[in-house]
Amino acid sequence: MLGCVAGFFTYETTKSVVVKSWQVGIIYRFAQLLIILYFVGWVFLHEKAYQVRDTGIESAVMTKVKGFGFYNGSLMDVADYVAPQQGAAMFCIITKMIITPSQSQGLCAEPDKKFSCATDEDCTKHLSSNLGSGRITGRCLTSEKQCQIEGWCPAENDNQTMTPMREVENFTIFIKNSIRFPLFNVTRGNILSSVNAQKIQTCLYHPYKDPYCPIFRVGDVLEYANENLDSIMDRGGEIGINIAWKCNLDLHVNNCLPNYTFTRLDAPFKHSHVTKGYNFRFAKYYRSQNQEVRTLHKAFAIRFDIIVSGSAGKFSVIPTLINVVAACTSVGLVSDSAFKCKEFKQASHITIKAEEKNSDDSGAFSIGYQL
Amino acid sequence: MLGCVAGFFTYETTKSVVVKSWQVGIIYRFAQLLIILYFVGWVFLHEKAYQVRDTGIESAVMTKVKGFGFYNGSLMDVADYVAPQQGAAMFCIITKMIITPSQSQGLCAEPDKKFSCATDEDCTKHLSSNLGSGRITGRCLTSEKQCQIEGWCPAENDNQTMTPMREVENFTIFIKNSIRFPLFNVTRGNILSSVNAQKIQTCLYHPYKDPYCPIFRVGDVLEYANENLDSIMDRGGEIGINIAWKCNLDLHVNNCLPNYTFTRLDAPFKHSHVTKGYNFRFAKYYRSQNQEVRTLHKAFAIRFDIIVSGSAGKFSVIPTLINVVAACTSVGLVSDSAFKCKEFKQASHITIKAEEKNSDDSGAFSIGYQL
Amino acid sequence: MLGCVAGFFTYETTKSVVVKSWQVGIIYRFAQLLIILYFVGWVFLHEKAYQVRDTGIESAVMTKVKGFGFYNGSLMDVADYVAPQQGAAMFCIITKMIITPSQSQGLCAEPDKKFSCATDEDCTKHLSSNLGSGRITGRCLTSEKQCQIEGWCPAENDNQTMTPMREVENFTIFIKNSIRFPLFNVTRGNILSSVNAQKIQTCLYHPYKDPYCPIFRVGDVLEYANENLDSIMDRGGEIGINIAWKCNLDLHVNNCLPNYTFTRLDAPFKHSHVTKGYNFRFAKYYRSQNQEVRTLHKAFAIRFDIIVSGSAGKFSVIPTLINVVAACTSVGLVSDSAFKCKEFKQASHITIKAEEKNSDDSGAFSIGYQL
Repeated sequence: MLGCVAGFFTYETTKSVVVKSWQVGIIYRFAQLLIILYFVGWVFLHEKAYQVRDTGIESAVMTKVKGFGFYNGSLMDVADYVAPQQGAAMFCIITKMIITPSQSQGLCAEPDKKFSCATDEDCTKHLSSNLGSGRITGRCLTSEKQCQIEGWCPAENDNQTMTPMREVENFTIFIKNSIRFPLFNVTRGNILSSVNAQKIQTCLYHPYKDPYCPIFRVGDVLEYANENLDSIMDRGGEIGINIAWKCNLDLHVNNCLPNYTFTRLDAPFKHSHVTKGYNFRFAKYYRSQNQEVRTLHKAFAIRFDIIVSGSAGKFSVIPTLINVVAACTSVGLVSDSAFKCKEFKQASHITIKAEEKNSDDSGAFSIGYQL
Repeated sequence: MLGCVAGFFTYETTKSVVVKSWQVGIIYRFAQLLIILYFVGWVFLHEKAYQVRDTGIESAVMTKVKGFGFYNGSLMDVADYVAPQQGAAMFCIITKMIITPSQSQGLCAEPDKKFSCATDEDCTKHLSSNLGSGRITGRCLTSEKQCQIEGWCPAENDNQTMTPMREVENFTIFIKNSIRFPLFNVTRGNILSSVNAQKIQTCLYHPYKDPYCPIFRVGDVLEYANENLDSIMDRGGEIGINIAWKCNLDLHVNNCLPNYTFTRLDAPFKHSHVTKGYNFRFAKYYRSQNQEVRTLHKAFAIRFDIIVSGSAGKFSVIPTLINVVAACTSVGLVSDSAFKCKEFKQASHITIKAEEKNSDDSGAFSIGYQL
Repeated sequence: MLGCVAGFFTYETTKSVVVKSWQVGIIYRFAQLLIILYFVGWVFLHEKAYQVRDTGIESAVMTKVKGFGFYNGSLMDVADYVAPQQGAAMFCIITKMIITPSQSQGLCAEPDKKFSCATDEDCTKHLSSNLGSGRITGRCLTSEKQCQIEGWCPAENDNQTMTPMREVENFTIFIKNSIRFPLFNVTRGNILSSVNAQKIQTCLYHPYKDPYCPIFRVGDVLEYANENLDSIMDRGGEIGINIAWKCNLDLHVNNCLPNYTFTRLDAPFKHSHVTKGYNFRFAKYYRSQNQEVRTLHKAFAIRFDIIVSGSAGKFSVIPTLINVVAACTSVGLVSDSAFKCKEFKQASHITIKAEEKNSDDSGAFSIGYQL
C-alpha cells in the first residue's frame, strides 16, 4: 500500500543515448534547424498559429447607383434602370431593352422563324410546343406566313438590334459594407472614419490612388475585371465585386481594412456558343378601357454581385501554448538545452559508447494536435 | 567552451529494447498494420490528406424559366408568373392567385369571419386589432353583418378555392452556374464545353441519362424531391436545387463536374397544422380618374432556391510531407526497416534479454499536427 | 532469411528509467494532472472532440409581415410597404416616403441648391454633371432661379420633412426557418411541434417568456437591438435577426432549438457624418393619354436580414478513438498504471539508481492529429 503511494510519486522517463559523432551531429542539428524554420516561418509567422481565428464574418451590404442616361429618346434614372431597387448586394443595371408596348390578351402571329408556315398543317404539328410566345392555335396566318398564337399580343420580336445606353460607363456605384466578427465582437465599415462628407461626394475608387473610396465608376470596374464595355453592354453579363477583410486584431483595429477585387462571374460562359450574356423579362401593367395592358421589356443588364469574405485573428493563450509545446517537443529543445553541456563526454562511434540520460519529452507530446 | 561546441554536434536518441517474442511480435505487427491501414485508407485515400483544400467556393447563378400557362382564362408568361424577375438564385413560380381587382382607399366590410357582428358594440371591441384588412371603424355594416374597415376596398376575401395553373409541371428552368475556386484560380461552368447550341435547346436533365444538362422540368424536379405536384401547386412550397462541386484538381479539370440534388426546403413544416405552403401578396397599381387603384394578388408559388456548395483539392508538398512524416513516425517504420535485419538476435523473454538499439523517431513527432 | 522473418515478429520499445524522488514525482504528477484536465475539460467537454461536426448548415427562410398603418392619409398594407414582396430572408419595411407624383419626360427646374443660377452661364458649367435629376440643358430658368434639366418632370425635391408611419412599431414579422444538417440528414424547423394553430396566432417572441415563438414585433426587435425607434424610422436602417442553431445530436433531436439575437447591421455608420440610414427609390408607372407617367418614391425603410448559422455534433468512433489515444499517450497513463505497483523499488537520486521498464507509448503517438 505504502509502496503504491510512493510509486505514484515516481517519475518515469525514457533512457537516452548521446552519440558523439560530428557527422551524425551535423545531420541531427540540420534536421532540428529545418523543424525550427518550419515552426517559426510557416506555423507562427505565415499561419499565425498563435491566434484564434474567426471566419464566420457577418456582413451587410447596401448599394446605391447614381447617374442617368438616355435610351430610346427618354431619360432613364435609377428608378428606371436598377432592378431590384432595394439597393441590396445583388443588383442589375439595365443597359439595353427590347420594348414591346401595348400587349393585351388576344390572337396574333408568332414572330419566331421556327413557326413560319404555308398551311395550317405546318402549325398543327407545333400544337403542344411551349417555345413560342403563347399557345399555338394551329392556324396559319396567311398574311404574315407565321403560325397564330393565343396570348399577349402583339408578341415580342426580339430579333432587333438596339444601341445600348452608353452613359452606363459613367454611372457610379456607392457601396456601404458593414461587417462584424462575432467571436471578437468587432464591427467595421468600409468608410474610413477620417473621411468627411465633402470627400465622399467627390472621391472615386482607384486601386493605388484611392483604395478605400467606396464609390466605383462602372467603366472602371469593367476595366479592373478586364472586360470590354461594348460587349457586356450589348449582351449583359455578371460582375463580381469582392470585398475581402483580412484582419489582424493584434494590431490597432483601424488596420482592419477592406480590399476590393473585381471578376467577371460568368466568365466560363463568355466564349460559349450556347449561352452568353445576361437578360431577363419584366412587364409594366396598365389598365385601359377596363382591359389589362402591359409593356413587356426584355432587359439586357450588367448584374453586380457584392461578395464579402474575411477572417480575423487575435492572440490567444491556448493555441500559443499548444504550438510552443509542440515546437519544443519536436525540436527536442527542452532536453537538449538542459543537459547537453553538463553531461558531455567523448564518444566516437554510434551504438557502442553511449551514455544514459533522461529526456522528459514524452508526456507533453501529442497535446498539441487538439486545436 | 570547446566541449560545448562539440556537444552541440552530438546526436541524442532514446535507448530501445528489441523483444524477441512471437506473441508480442504478432500483436506489435498487427497494431502497426492497423496504423498503416488507418493512414493509407483513411488519411490518404479517403481524406486526401496530401492535398490542399479550397472550400471558399465563389458562385454565380443565373436562372431562366420557360413556358406558359393559362390562369383564369388568360395566358401567363414568364413576366407574369416569375418573381423576382431578375433570374437570380432564388425565384418563385406562381401557381395560383387570388386576385382582388379595383381596390381603392375607402370604407367597406371586412370579409373575415372573426369580424362578423350584429351591433356596433361587436366591432368597437376590435378597434385596435390589426388582424383585419384595414382599420376597424367600430361600425357594424348591417347588410353584410360584418364590421366596417377603412382601407383598400373592397377587401380581399381569400376564402376561395381556385384551380392552380397545371401547365407549371411542364415549365423548364435553365440554370447557368459558374463557380471559382479562388485558391487555385480555377473557374468552371455547369454547361459542358462539348455541348452545342442544338443540344442545349432540346436536352432535359435526368439523373442517369443526362446528368449534366442544365435544363430542369418543374415536374421532374418535384418528383426527384419526392413531392406531390398537386399539393405543392395548391399551397405553395420551397424546393432546393443543390449543386455540389467536389473537384479533385489532380485530375484533368474537365472531371470537375456539378452534381444536382433536390430537396423540399420547408419539409419540417409540411405536416404542421400551423403553417403550410408558401404565399405572398403583391399589388399592381393603376391610376383612374386621378385616384390610385390597385389589383391585389395573393400568390401561391413554388419557390426555388439554387444552393451551390463545393470544395476542390490539389496536391501540395507541405501537407504531404507532414502526413508522410506523421505516418512513418507512428508506425515506427523508419527505425524498424533500417535496423531489423542487421541487429537480429535470439531472445525469448520480454524484459530479460534485450538489446540496445537507436530509434530516431522522437524529433519528427508532432510536426504533423500543425495542418 | 529465417532470421529476417523471425526479426519481423519482434517488438521494439524504448528503455525507461523509473526515478524514485518525491520532488520530481510531485512535479511529474502535477504536469500529468494539468494534461488530464486539459483533455477532459477543454478537449472533451468544451470542444466535444468525441463528436463529428457538421457546419455546412442548409437553411431556408420565409417571412411574412402583418399589420397596417396610415401614411399621408391613406392606408398602407403589406403589399404597399414591404419590398421585395416574396417574403425572403431579406426584406424592407418602408417607414417614410417622399412621393413625387405625375412625372413625365420633359423640361423643368432642378430643385437642388447646387444648381441655383442667375444667368445661363451658371448652368453651362454644369453641362456634364450627373448629380442632378436629369441632363442640364444649360439654360437658367429665371422664375425659379434654378438650372433647367431634361428628364422626368417635375423633379423630386427630397428636401422635405415627412412624418414616418408610427404604426410600424406594432407590425409583426413571422419567420419560418427550416434547416438541414446534410451530414446527419437532420431537418429542423423553428416552430415547435408542440405548438398549435391557436398559440401561433397569439404568441409574441420574448427572450425569456417565449423564446421559441416565431413572431416578432418590430418595436421589440428594435429594443432588443438597442435601437431608437424614432431615429431608425426617420432615416432608415438595417437590422439583423440572427438565428443560431447549436445542436448536440447525441441528445434527443427536440433539444435542437433556435436561438435568436438582434443587431443593427449598419452600426459602423450610425454616427458617421457622411452616410446614415437606408433609403432607395422606386417608381410606379402609369399610362395617360398615350404617355408614360410615373410616381417616384424615395422610400426610407428598415431593412431586415435573417441570418442563419449553426452547427451540429454527433458521437463518432474515429475522433473519439483518436482523442482517447492522444490523451492516454500524453499522460503516459497506459505505461504507468500497468507497471507502477509491480516494479516499485527504492531510489533516491535521479540519474543514478534507475530501473529498466518497457513503455509502449511510441507507436500510437501522432495518429491523433489527422482529424
